[in-house]
This record gives sequence, structure tokens and C-alpha cells, in this order.
Amino acid sequence: MGKRLPKTFHCSTEFTLHVLGGKWKTVILCYLKERPLRYTEIRKLVPTLSDKMLTQRLHDLIDSGLISRKSVDLGGGAEVYMLTSRGGSLGSLLKELYDWGERHAASFGVSVGVPLKELDEAG
Amino acid sequence: MGKRLPKTFHCSTEFTLHVLGGKWKTVILCYLKERPLRYTEIRKLVPTLSDKMLTQRLHDLIDSGLISRKSVDLGGGAEVYMLTSRGGSLGSLLKELYDWGERHAASFGVSVGVPLKELDEAG
Repeated sequence: MGKRLPKTFHCSTEFTLHVLGGKWKTVILCYLKERPLRYTEIRKLVPTLSDKMLTQRLHDLIDSGLISRKSVDLGGGAEVYMLTSRGGSLGSLLKELYDWGERHAASFGVSVGVPLKELDEAG
Repeated sequence: MGKRLPKTFHCSTEFTLHVLGGKWKTVILCYLKERPLRYTEIRKLVPTLSDKMLTQRLHDLIDSGLISRKSVDLGGGAEVYMLTSRGGSLGSLLKELYDWGERHAASFGVSVGVPLKELDEAG
């Protein structure tokens, strides 16, 4: 976003969608809303995205001020990605996106996975 | 959607985003959440979309069961588009999308329009 953000938007919803930045960034933000995650963890959560694409999405999200990368003392010099306070302001919207899908999947005849839960249980 | 809807999604958020179906469909749903609208009104609300694109988006939304087209007795055989009950289930999510943009536009240094209000005031 940053320099590329237009100064005016035709409507409020269009602006919000621009900030979310498309499907994969929104999905990544939803995971980071739950907890800080290492690159290798995000990698497992969005397996259909190539490394190059994932790295670009993460870079864009940092650039737009929604997430940050921080070193954490886990004994191995690990780095995690986490929501910034700006990213955190999207919390209830991200929750609505997740919850609506969970509540309505069955009525559409589809099943949805819970990859973060599976990751945590495997961990 | 319909026949093209996958049977499984990797996560709940991905499914919700698939149902919303991208920027323009989501914007149109946000307007229809406010009230039923005639084609000519929607036309004015999303002026950057071509007639062909708008017609396709409306067709997709009907196909996915989120909106319907109904004849109304306004003296001129008018038709309006409106949310179905399935589309209405997206109400609080659509509200969050709109409200977040309205609350945060200033902190991003952008201004957002209110085209439906302008349309109604223009009468």
C-alpha cells in the first residue's frame, strides 16, 4: 500500500477491501489475528501459495503497516510475524469473515478445514 | 457460484471470501444491504464498472443465491435487486466492512465518498 494508496475512494467498503488487499492477505491476517506465527508456520497454513507469492504478500502487509516481523527469544533466533495495532483494528472484521464461513458452510454443502488448530495439535 | 463452488475449503475465511466473490460483488452487496435498488441506481453507484461487467456481477450474485430480482409496482413496471435471506445473512459482515473503512479512512489520509446518500439526496 503506502505510496500506492489512492487518496480518495468511491465508498467506504471499497477502501476497506483495498486495505485487506485480496484473498491471501486477508487469510494471512485472519491467522495472525489468532497469534504471532513463524514463517514456517504460515507456510503450512497456506500450502497452495508459492514461497515467492507468500513472501511478497508478507512484504506487502508489512509495507501497509498491518503486520510486523519481530525477533523472539525462543533459543534459536526465531522471528515471528504479528499484527500491528493498525492490523489489530481489523480484528472484529476478520472475526466476522471467519465466523460467517464457519456458520454457513454446511448450508452451502461445503466443508471447511481448521489448519491452525491442526498445526497447534501437531506441534 | 452454484456448480462452480468447491466442496472443501482450506479454511473458513477462504470460503467466506469465495462467497463474497471479489471487490465489486462485495461493494454491490453492501449497497443492497441498505435497500433494494434498481439497475439504473446501481449503475450510478459503481460508475467505473462497465455495463457488461456490472450485468455479469449481478448475474453471478443471483446465481449464487445472494440477491434476487423482483418486479415492483412503481407505476412503470420497474424491477429491483435485493438481498435474499442468504444474502441477508452476510449483513453484519457487510456492516463491518463498511464501518471499518469509515472509521479508519482519516488515519490512512484518505477520504471516502457516500454515493448512496448522494443518490438519495439527489432524489
